[in-house]
Amino acid sequence: MTTKTYKKLNKDDAVMLLVDHQAGLLSLVRDIDPDKFRNNVLATADLAKYFKLPTILTTSFEQGPNGPLMPELKEMFPDAPYVARPGQINAWDNEDFVKAIKATGRRQLLIAGVVTEVCVAFPALSAIEEGFDVFVVTDASGTFNDIARHSAWDRMSQAGAQLINWFGVACELHRDWRNDVEGLATLLSNHIPDYRNLITTYNALKG
Amino acid sequence: MTTKTYKKLNKDDAVMLLVDHQAGLLSLVRDIDPDKFRNNVLATADLAKYFKLPTILTTSFEQGPNGPLMPELKEMFPDAPYVARPGQINAWDNEDFVKAIKATGRRQLLIAGVVTEVCVAFPALSAIEEGFDVFVVTDASGTFNDIARHSAWDRMSQAGAQLINWFGVACELHRDWRNDVEGLATLLSNHIPDYRNLITTYNALKG
Amino acid sequence: MTTKTYKKLNKDDAVMLLVDHQAGLLSLVRDIDPDKFRNNVLATADLAKYFKLPTILTTSFEQGPNGPLMPELKEMFPDAPYVARPGQINAWDNEDFVKAIKATGRRQLLIAGVVTEVCVAFPALSAIEEGFDVFVVTDASGTFNDIARHSAWDRMSQAGAQLINWFGVACELHRDWRNDVEGLATLLSNHIPDYRNLITTYNALKG
Amino acid sequence: MTTKTYKKLNKDDAVMLLVDHQAGLLSLVRDIDPDKFRNNVLATADLAKYFKLPTILTTSFEQGPNGPLMPELKEMFPDAPYVARPGQINAWDNEDFVKAIKATGRRQLLIAGVVTEVCVAFPALSAIEEGFDVFVVTDASGTFNDIARHSAWDRMSQAGAQLINWFGVACELHRDWRNDVEGLATLLSNHIPDYRNLITTYNALKG
Amino acid sequence: MTTKTYKKLNKDDAVMLLVDHQAGLLSLVRDIDPDKFRNNVLATADLAKYFKLPTILTTSFEQGPNGPLMPELKEMFPDAPYVARPGQINAWDNEDFVKAIKATGRRQLLIAGVVTEVCVAFPALSAIEEGFDVFVVTDASGTFNDIARHSAWDRMSQAGAQLINWFGVACELHRDWRNDVEGLATLLSNHIPDYRNLITTYNALKG
Amino acid sequence: MTTKTYKKLNKDDAVMLLVDHQAGLLSLVRDIDPDKFRNNVLATADLAKYFKLPTILTTSFEQGPNGPLMPELKEMFPDAPYVARPGQINAWDNEDFVKAIKATGRRQLLIAGVVTEVCVAFPALSAIEEGFDVFVVTDASGTFNDIARHSAWDRMSQAGAQLINWFGVACELHRDWRNDVEGLATLLSNHIPDYRNLITTYNALKG
Amino acid sequence: MTTKTYKKLNKDDAVMLLVDHQAGLLSLVRDIDPDKFRNNVLATADLAKYFKLPTILTTSFEQGPNGPLMPELKEMFPDAPYVARPGQINAWDNEDFVKAIKATGRRQLLIAGVVTEVCVAFPALSAIEEGFDVFVVTDASGTFNDIARHSAWDRMSQAGAQLINWFGVACELHRDWRNDVEGLATLLSNHIPDYRNLITTYNALKG
Amino acid sequence: MTTKTYKKLNKDDAVMLLVDHQAGLLSLVRDIDPDKFRNNVLATADLAKYFKLPTILTTSFEQGPNGPLMPELKEMFPDAPYVARPGQINAWDNEDFVKAIKATGRRQLLIAGVVTEVCVAFPALSAIEEGFDVFVVTDASGTFNDIARHSAWDRMSQAGAQLINWFGVACELHRDWRNDVEGLATLLSNHIPDYRNLITTYNALKG
Repeated sequence: MTTKTYKKLNKDDAVMLLVDHQAGLLSLVRDIDPDKFRNNVLATADLAKYFKLPTILTTSFEQGPNGPLMPELKEMFPDAPYVARPGQINAWDNEDFVKAIKATGRRQLLIAGVVTEVCVAFPALSAIEEGFDVFVVTDASGTFNDIARHSAWDRMSQAGAQLINWFGVACELHRDWRNDVEGLATLLSNHIPDYRNLITTYNALKG
Repeated sequence: MTTKTYKKLNKDDAVMLLVDHQAGLLSLVRDIDPDKFRNNVLATADLAKYFKLPTILTTSFEQGPNGPLMPELKEMFPDAPYVARPGQINAWDNEDFVKAIKATGRRQLLIAGVVTEVCVAFPALSAIEEGFDVFVVTDASGTFNDIARHSAWDRMSQAGAQLINWFGVACELHRDWRNDVEGLATLLSNHIPDYRNLITTYNALKG
Repeated sequence: MTTKTYKKLNKDDAVMLLVDHQAGLLSLVRDIDPDKFRNNVLATADLAKYFKLPTILTTSFEQGPNGPLMPELKEMFPDAPYVARPGQINAWDNEDFVKAIKATGRRQLLIAGVVTEVCVAFPALSAIEEGFDVFVVTDASGTFNDIARHSAWDRMSQAGAQLINWFGVACELHRDWRNDVEGLATLLSNHIPDYRNLITTYNALKG
Repeated sequence: MTTKTYKKLNKDDAVMLLVDHQAGLLSLVRDIDPDKFRNNVLATADLAKYFKLPTILTTSFEQGPNGPLMPELKEMFPDAPYVARPGQINAWDNEDFVKAIKATGRRQLLIAGVVTEVCVAFPALSAIEEGFDVFVVTDASGTFNDIARHSAWDRMSQAGAQLINWFGVACELHRDWRNDVEGLATLLSNHIPDYRNLITTYNALKG
Repeated sequence: MTTKTYKKLNKDDAVMLLVDHQAGLLSLVRDIDPDKFRNNVLATADLAKYFKLPTILTTSFEQGPNGPLMPELKEMFPDAPYVARPGQINAWDNEDFVKAIKATGRRQLLIAGVVTEVCVAFPALSAIEEGFDVFVVTDASGTFNDIARHSAWDRMSQAGAQLINWFGVACELHRDWRNDVEGLATLLSNHIPDYRNLITTYNALKG
Repeated sequence: MTTKTYKKLNKDDAVMLLVDHQAGLLSLVRDIDPDKFRNNVLATADLAKYFKLPTILTTSFEQGPNGPLMPELKEMFPDAPYVARPGQINAWDNEDFVKAIKATGRRQLLIAGVVTEVCVAFPALSAIEEGFDVFVVTDASGTFNDIARHSAWDRMSQAGAQLINWFGVACELHRDWRNDVEGLATLLSNHIPDYRNLITTYNALKG
Repeated sequence: MTTKTYKKLNKDDAVMLLVDHQAGLLSLVRDIDPDKFRNNVLATADLAKYFKLPTILTTSFEQGPNGPLMPELKEMFPDAPYVARPGQINAWDNEDFVKAIKATGRRQLLIAGVVTEVCVAFPALSAIEEGFDVFVVTDASGTFNDIARHSAWDRMSQAGAQLINWFGVACELHRDWRNDVEGLATLLSNHIPDYRNLITTYNALKG
Repeated sequence: MTTKTYKKLNKDDAVMLLVDHQAGLLSLVRDIDPDKFRNNVLATADLAKYFKLPTILTTSFEQGPNGPLMPELKEMFPDAPYVARPGQINAWDNEDFVKAIKATGRRQLLIAGVVTEVCVAFPALSAIEEGFDVFVVTDASGTFNDIARHSAWDRMSQAGAQLINWFGVACELHRDWRNDVEGLATLLSNHIPDYRNLITTYNALKG
């Protein structure tokens, strides 16, 4: 009875959606410490790049108080579809955004964004309704407080979304260290200080 | 298999139910800080008004220790159905309350109240049983502590209620900033200090 | 699709099971503060008495390190079935315990105990398997820490148990204040300091 | 409707899988205090030994920064299958590991590991897909923080895994104190300081 | 250089001042859980009674929103000086209050009250200025939050007040168990559930 | 030995200094929740106005990223000295600021600001050096986290500053309710939801 | 002005006082997790032994509910002075205890005990009064909660006691790793899991 | 009486001491999140460089389990005195370290290190004894837990050390934005995500 298909992330079937990580909106994120949140978002972007996942950027009202997208994201994905939404709150309500996703032909959506209960949850629920497999990158998505977060997580989980942190995503996509030991180690070292320390020590003792 | 209809809040199908936000009962709320809780309740009321949702007020034993309804709520909705229940703990057990809901012809119920496991959970479970779609406004509902809260959330979620904070409600109802940029911005600015700061800065630099 | 029967507590169909609130085992409870936990357990016992619920007491190894049952519970229910289990960890594995439950002819089981993941969860899962409706009194059940608690809650909730704190139980059983205003007020006043304060103030101003 | 089979741990059908408790990886565990986590892991190993559960050890890249397995685990299970995976992140992707499990003929898998969302969740989801009953030993599994933990728990729980702490496992396996009072008491005393105190007091007063 | 006189509580030189534990004001206390705070206040009153300390009660505006004194305190000290202050916020500004203290001829003041930074700190600072030795009963004094508490503690400590919880007070006054084993044990048992459990177990094993 | 002068706030000798509560800098405040912090700052401003304290506003680089002063503060004190510092980080390094203070002839400085360890601590330490009595309004001063806060509090406290929350300030300045019952009650009601509830209930029962 | 003699722990001048770590009293300790607290106490004992500090054990009412001393402590110090106090709450009030200390001729007292505000603070304050240098081993001393702890720390610190955790004590006594690398490493490895991991990894890579 | 000299950091009189930020020891730091701690340490190093403070690096047993210094620190200060201590735990016990400090002719010592109660506190207390002014960079110093931290802070503060976070240090050294707006802004932007966002927004709106 508990048998259930393991919907596993696949680097040939996954797309990364980065939704509204804008300089103004970031000041609303209070459920994760800013140092850590910034690191998580950049780690998520780095893994998308490392695994060559098609990546789609979108923003809401860049010209207004929400502010511009984090410049680092623009620089990392200069050729990615970039959908500056003219007003739709749910990115899925924007045709260009959905078209860009469908153009990849992929069915697994990784979504991270600010704030969780809106910019992540709304497109997640829309995508599930259309049959996509949705993975919420929980630690690269931020919101006001724990009540907002857990309400959003519950809503998405009950609808069938899978909750997973960026480290879990990276490991599930990589499958086997032997595919590229150095590449994965570098990714982890750049975003997990404890892992960086392990590597520093290892190199010192083995070097 | 994870395909699931996205039951989206719709401003033409939603009703706001504010249950027992009474001066005495508010002293029982200890899972949310009082400054924040008051703000959340007023924000929820404001959004109901802004989106012109039919709103129904109800209280339990106003004359006794539970105390009178928050005066602000009465003032904001002078013409709303106001059901001072003579004794029913579950508002749904009061005919006038249910009639007032059914009179709106709407099927999406937004419920906020004090305390979560009683004044919110009981009518939520009753409404689900009658086929309504129930959305619990989690941050405008308060209770004694985290154990009470999470027990109640789990019970309602397992029965099919959707958990969502007031900001999520406002955004899902609004759909598109272009429907009224200034209106939504004012609502957010009045209840989210961080957002207010973004607007202050924006105006200073753009003004 | 979210329509789901509201399994409501009914004072004519509910039994209270108090499992292993023993002086030694109580020292293991670290997920709830001792002052509060003691109050919650006594409140749960009081409500069982107030609503005249058949109540069943059981202990594990009273003669050994687990220690004797809290004396207050024995005193409150001098005539209740008292099953001092000779060794079964899951109370449901003890025939006398199950017989005592079945002898009541009731189908709704309220369970509280120490520790949550064992003394509560095991009989809860057994009872669900036999078709009983199970309600876990979450705040009168204690354990080592949050990991133990949330693991146990998840296991029981996924199996169909309903999680509810003692205040929720009391209110769902009472249904309507008019059934006995003074009785319920006394129960609440004796176990909720904030409520007691409301009544004190009310009496002072009205007296 | 809530009737659901109680999938009970059975000492004749359970296998213990200890995944990647390596000296380097342990420095990544930040959701449980190190004193407590070390104790939980050793308690889990001790119970496996006490109940004579077939136990399987596995590591990832022992020669690299992840570091060697905790020496205590090697010493406790000198004859257990020990699968030093050459690169597979999901232990289930390693044939030797799965063969070792299947060779036991058992269908209940107890899994503990570091980190929860990878080394525990991946094999858990794989095993569920193949029809095994999976029990996650939550407090002997560690990860970066609460977001990582709760995301992983939710993913596994929704797939049908049961969450349970080591104390719950021990009690569910033991069933009845009379099977061996002294054995279980020793196990608990060695890993639960509060229980040890009860026994010390008991012996002093009874001795 | 660190030699410093130990100003020890002395039951023949100490007075207990209970300031403004009023039903309304108690709802402001948010830095200690209500169950625990109520217990601490009653324990403090009990110890004053047990050690026969002259005790002085005072309130601020009982007729207004601050509400009446906790009825239990009135009942416990029917003959104590009771100063219902007509308006002075600092009880020390009320002549009757200071007279009542000076009438005892004692120089050690134990002060507990609501809220800490006002009802406790103001008279504490005034009394220190007049050369009294001041002991703040920290856990029977409550306020809005940790910032308020720690600011007040720092201000009083820097002025020379000693911070001590009620249990410390009881033990420092008692000096030696042999002065009255049963009396102290009863006091502790009535207000410390963990201690009550020790006694229950002890009696069961020794009885 | 513990005798120490009680340096009591005096409404005829106190000045309120509001330092750098600017829209941009407010996003740096993470040791107090934004809803609560905004309320505390406005309460502090309100009390300054209510007690007719000379109030001095100052900002740092309003034209740059630090952003403009909270507009509410400007509106509340249209005639107050307003020192837009051209670059000095420590407001005390700005001659106009110090002149404005000295012009009042007062010796008690109430300081609140953002961030605590810089905008509050630097002028506090400078003022102490010049013999002023300094009172830090701790809950109207915010910073990055608890480490920053407690470091700053310790540094200021060791130098002789007194730490006090806004409620303590208001009560110490007011001295006696009879000076103006309604005025103080309104101030408290506007900024302490729990107090507002007490008044609402009181009015309902007495009205 | 800030020049102050560094009172440094000296292994030839220090005595270790272990006060009332009794099986019953340990159940009162709620400000430190039991796994960690047990470890801290044993580490403190180990370091006393390692540095050959004269060590004095004392208990209060072993025959009553307080229970016997932790057996491990008795076993580690079979020849240490062992003062079973007949009733004195402050160990310093017991002549044998003070004599045992004075017999060592040493002037630096390390004190750890249960509970902090009584069994540690009382003898600490008495010893300071007699001119001893007192060091409180903060993490091997436990009490009811944070309020009790911080009140006690403040009282002792203001009187001149130095607060230090066991690791600090060990390092200050050792002075230089070269005095015995292996000995100190073993001590740390046995009580700090993170340090143990470093050594395990180091040995694996260097071995 | 509260007049006290403001010992202000002065960029011409300050030295930065970075003590034992080694890859192994960093795994012991559990009182600050690793992402944040790494950021704080690098920020502290950056500010030393920016203000051209003489900087001294020291390590303990680099060849053993403590591991090598964080490579970034070595790279940032290639010409700084680098004292690899052969065994002294207190860096002040190493002649080369003290000589390097004295060679600068400066009297203000900024100290950050791992762990706080040893590598920071010991040299801090030694330096105070020799008349240096000591400033502890609290958020670039880490240790096992809050008990260790607060014990160490109290010990150092009572001896006259000033506690201050890196941001406070940078601002106190800089004095006036006009000394170099861009330089300070870059330093803050690189280490405070919230500040970076302010600058991003500012540039977008002004650019």
